[in-house]
Amino acid sequence: MSDRDTPRRGAWAALLGVAALCAGGALGCPGGNGGAPAGSTVAQLMQERGLSEADVEAALKTYTPTGKHDEYLLFASGGHAGNLIVIGLPSMRILKYVAVFTPEPWQGFAYGDQTNELLVQGARDGRPITWGDMHHPALSETNGEYDGQFCFVNDKANARIAVVNLKDFVTTQIVTSELIESDHGATFVTPNTEYVIEAAQYPAPLGGRYAPIEKYDEEYRGAVIFWKFDRTRGRIVPEASWAIELPPYMQDLSDAGKLASDGWVFINSFDTERSWGGNMEGRPPLESGASQNDMDYLHIIDWRKAEKVVQQGLTETIAGMRVIRLQTAIEKGLLHFVGEPKSPHGVDVTPDGKEIVVGGKLDTHCTVYSFEKIRQLIEQKRYEGKDPYGVPILPFREAIRGQVEIGLGPLHTTFDDKGFAYTSVFIESTVAKWSLKDLKVVHKQPVHYNIGHLVAAEGDTVSPDGRYLVAMNKWSIDRFADVGPLLPQNFQLIDITGEEMRLLYDLPIPLGEPHYAQIVKADKIKALEIYPLGTNALEHRPDPHAVKAGQQRIERGPDGVHVYMTAVRSHFKPDVIRVKQGERVHLHITNVEQARDATHGFTINSYNVQLSLEPGKHCNVSFVADRAGVFPFYCTEFCSALHLEMAGYLLVEPIE
Amino acid sequence: MSDRDTPRRGAWAALLGVAALCAGGALGCPGGNGGAPAGSTVAQLMQERGLSEADVEAALKTYTPTGKHDEYLLFASGGHAGNLIVIGLPSMRILKYVAVFTPEPWQGFAYGDQTNELLVQGARDGRPITWGDMHHPALSETNGEYDGQFCFVNDKANARIAVVNLKDFVTTQIVTSELIESDHGATFVTPNTEYVIEAAQYPAPLGGRYAPIEKYDEEYRGAVIFWKFDRTRGRIVPEASWAIELPPYMQDLSDAGKLASDGWVFINSFDTERSWGGNMEGRPPLESGASQNDMDYLHIIDWRKAEKVVQQGLTETIAGMRVIRLQTAIEKGLLHFVGEPKSPHGVDVTPDGKEIVVGGKLDTHCTVYSFEKIRQLIEQKRYEGKDPYGVPILPFREAIRGQVEIGLGPLHTTFDDKGFAYTSVFIESTVAKWSLKDLKVVHKQPVHYNIGHLVAAEGDTVSPDGRYLVAMNKWSIDRFADVGPLLPQNFQLIDITGEEMRLLYDLPIPLGEPHYAQIVKADKIKALEIYPLGTNALEHRPDPHAVKAGQQRIERGPDGVHVYMTAVRSHFKPDVIRVKQGERVHLHITNVEQARDATHGFTINSYNVQLSLEPGKHCNVSFVADRAGVFPFYCTEFCSALHLEMAGYLLVEPIE
Repeated sequence: MSDRDTPRRGAWAALLGVAALCAGGALGCPGGNGGAPAGSTVAQLMQERGLSEADVEAALKTYTPTGKHDEYLLFASGGHAGNLIVIGLPSMRILKYVAVFTPEPWQGFAYGDQTNELLVQGARDGRPITWGDMHHPALSETNGEYDGQFCFVNDKANARIAVVNLKDFVTTQIVTSELIESDHGATFVTPNTEYVIEAAQYPAPLGGRYAPIEKYDEEYRGAVIFWKFDRTRGRIVPEASWAIELPPYMQDLSDAGKLASDGWVFINSFDTERSWGGNMEGRPPLESGASQNDMDYLHIIDWRKAEKVVQQGLTETIAGMRVIRLQTAIEKGLLHFVGEPKSPHGVDVTPDGKEIVVGGKLDTHCTVYSFEKIRQLIEQKRYEGKDPYGVPILPFREAIRGQVEIGLGPLHTTFDDKGFAYTSVFIESTVAKWSLKDLKVVHKQPVHYNIGHLVAAEGDTVSPDGRYLVAMNKWSIDRFADVGPLLPQNFQLIDITGEEMRLLYDLPIPLGEPHYAQIVKADKIKALEIYPLGTNALEHRPDPHAVKAGQQRIERGPDGVHVYMTAVRSHFKPDVIRVKQGERVHLHITNVEQARDATHGFTINSYNVQLSLEPGKHCNVSFVADRAGVFPFYCTEFCSALHLEMAGYLLVEPIE
Repeated sequence: MSDRDTPRRGAWAALLGVAALCAGGALGCPGGNGGAPAGSTVAQLMQERGLSEADVEAALKTYTPTGKHDEYLLFASGGHAGNLIVIGLPSMRILKYVAVFTPEPWQGFAYGDQTNELLVQGARDGRPITWGDMHHPALSETNGEYDGQFCFVNDKANARIAVVNLKDFVTTQIVTSELIESDHGATFVTPNTEYVIEAAQYPAPLGGRYAPIEKYDEEYRGAVIFWKFDRTRGRIVPEASWAIELPPYMQDLSDAGKLASDGWVFINSFDTERSWGGNMEGRPPLESGASQNDMDYLHIIDWRKAEKVVQQGLTETIAGMRVIRLQTAIEKGLLHFVGEPKSPHGVDVTPDGKEIVVGGKLDTHCTVYSFEKIRQLIEQKRYEGKDPYGVPILPFREAIRGQVEIGLGPLHTTFDDKGFAYTSVFIESTVAKWSLKDLKVVHKQPVHYNIGHLVAAEGDTVSPDGRYLVAMNKWSIDRFADVGPLLPQNFQLIDITGEEMRLLYDLPIPLGEPHYAQIVKADKIKALEIYPLGTNALEHRPDPHAVKAGQQRIERGPDGVHVYMTAVRSHFKPDVIRVKQGERVHLHITNVEQARDATHGFTINSYNVQLSLEPGKHCNVSFVADRAGVFPFYCTEFCSALHLEMAGYLLVEPIE
């Protein structure tokens, strides 16, 4: 429990009370405050609501009046809700849940033709998947700075990557490779977003093959995929992407080098013991089997050199993906290991790119590696051994600058603008602030309760902003009013401007289980206010079926009935559609409005259709009218005073 | 724009600055405030963040420090997101999104056997529907007071009703009747939750038949369904439910009588013109066709008398539902009309049950009907005419106490504890406070921007609390940082304790489009902290397949492979499952933990399975292992330091 829990109304509050009384016993100062009710002094409110002085300060540092915009946007993964959460700082208000892997009818996501296509793109072995387990969002970067253009996210459960376009906060692409069966070190981007990195987590035979688990050492493998991103098209290009095979360790979090370490990628790992469970078969469960060794391996990958190896064609194609096999990677010097204290979680490159910080979750330290030392050891081929697959291992003591005694369960580290690092300490439930210069902890801030990741403003860039840090705590337990056994998480906003951190705000997360987040200056995002008329929002270009006012029509063709419809306050045109049972119906609907507040929705009773038509947007949806009857359709967005009248009928005449 | 937008730092702020400076130039008062950083005075923060005096007061009235609980819970519909939103007041933090009509993987909702069954229950004509358009939540009542036990919600698009159990904030039932094709006057409950009321919106042939729309007057109908609720079982009982056929007007919002008017239900309507569109066929669009008449009809229904008619068997069964036909309803005196000024929206019974307030959205008034006058007119059979179907119409002037001049577009009314009513005024974007006693507006509060519904604390009960009101505004436009063309809504919290209303807080709604809400005292909700071991959460009883520690096993039967598994930090047992391709797999998983923070998730790669296992909960999920290969499964909830190690393998051996 923080000492913030106990209200303290000391000298300051008394003074405020006196000051207010001096002004007439209330805030109703003449000519000044526009009608503050009598008796509502600051001191009275502190008394009534049990607020301490620190609470008052926290309130005033976070409260954001109507119409004032937040300074920062935090992009958090929604975990197994499969969506992306956008939160404003310092107000800590959730501004949007962006649908990514999970259908979302309010956004019309996966309830119409264009967005359904995304789920088809993201199918595994031909089977669409209707959810995802999102862990690590990554904002696109230019020269190691967030550029506000795109956000990439992963689906750990099904080894998928998605692209969210920040022009309109819409998911435009989902890619997957059946090379791997799960991921965790994803997504992370290289400093100019050349690649979106996806490292596997649970080893499996590459390419979706079956192999008995007893052949784990020989046939199961990890891998890291470098998805090529085409910024101009805003799309990942699967055919230009490639991967590196890795030993069957559980690769974990990743980070891309930058500045001094640009061109490199760092991936940590656990279960280098190659334990795979079997707890009903006389073997140890993974949790103990994977926790035997004192050291796991930090994977150090030279991706620019790997890119050349791919260009030379030294790859093998597995499940459609060009793969640099493990032996090639070793022979070409693309992959090196260095020990990292047991079962690490976070691997975080410092803003200057010179050092790599690893938190060992069963250790009490953060280890700080020097990239320059690593580079020299690689150049000098100074190894302390090789792993069972022949990967050279650099000498641990010669690769590090030092270690910081953090506390119980250091997980993940972020950075500020003044040379400090902040590490989440899971078992202690604290944030530890420590000096990168002298590797010493300077302050610890208790949080409620178990902190997983943490994130500081622009903390993953080459120039962090400091200011704010968010502790992403796992179980709120007693922090909020009861809403049943499935508890919200608790995002705690912390002021990091001073020497000591100060807790400012508790935000319950009402949907999803975020793992990681990034915070970007809000003014870097240049979102569209409306779409140009007839826009296909997934491709950001005019839809060939877009409908202009005056061109509404119903056409019958060999593939069914095409309805070219417009939406405008407060009617659809046409508003009566007559078809025969069994006909395929293709609706092409353009919202022909250009006012910012003129969003419409579209649904048809019983047909599981739901579109969101923001101003200018065009959507297509097709279905077989296989049930005869009378089906009202209507606008699902409260668009005007006559919104309920924005309706019509689909009439499906039965076959005789 | 509110005048709150302009910070004013007048005499009061200057005084505070002086006061703080007197204390040493900063908040760092000796012995009092536990480390407030130098320079952070209230006045400085007002200056730095552009806060007015009213903003400071609003901040202190809403800021809720870590660990302090909100006083009220607001239950808002999620609109076409198909979920229910729970918000704490006065902090305005969203505490939970409850999955209802739309699958939600974080809650495991519709990704396992038990919850999938809910979508099957809610299927229309055998077709499961995977979303809903939720409009009006209703909290269960005892003697006209919220009792904190259940929340009912509707799906306008597909004419469905769901029950959410507030023991654990979980949806336990979805019912639908194909009698009607859409609803809007739903859900509303009678004062002891005898019935959950669902009134149709868009007329259609009853029971899902087809009829040409040219036969609208003869064959299309409205209806109101009285769903019988069994509080002990926590379930709607479809076979004990019944309906009343109504003319083909668009029935709209409803409210149940209480105290003086207990036993009655009031439903308003629009489109008594029976316009049905046809704007490509030379007919007027509905928006103008439905806006011709000066009066529509308030439907007045004597449900206790109707219940007796049902008991007498004077019903006809349509689509499995017992229906009192329109002519029977007229003959038995169950249904009366009274005029209501054009195109009304809200119908709201006053706390004492004596009056009914109707807002006419194309009118500038609220009309206040006297239930006693209505009752007498019905007794005296004093009609001013009949509608085309023979429904008697009471004389308007004799049924009302008066009308209040409200402003442009009055929609919906809620009540406080001091005899005031509050009406949302859509076109003006204001809340109008008016006196029930003398029917005069006493204050108007601007809101941002177009307000739909509004809700006051316990405002729908026989004893409203006053205190807080929430304006549910449709489009935030410029209120928040840009997150693309699909704008969040803006819930504005308003302090209604004083004579004048005061705006306290803007809450963006990040997902969904709420229509209506109810606010209940938080301490009325008695939620479970954990489940008893082995609980089936949809039935709140032990699951027959629940697994105890030590009884984990894998059994093969004629219907496939049954895996009896436990989840406990940090392993599943068994953690290796071996099956042959094509076998049906039945997983029975119990979370055998009883610590409040020990929620686990469960997923299998590529198989679209995702369970949420709160402490004590049991889930079943079955699927055909039709794809050979190696499929990792793991815990999707960050449950412990060794959470990533809580994993295993499903091994599907190919058929030779």
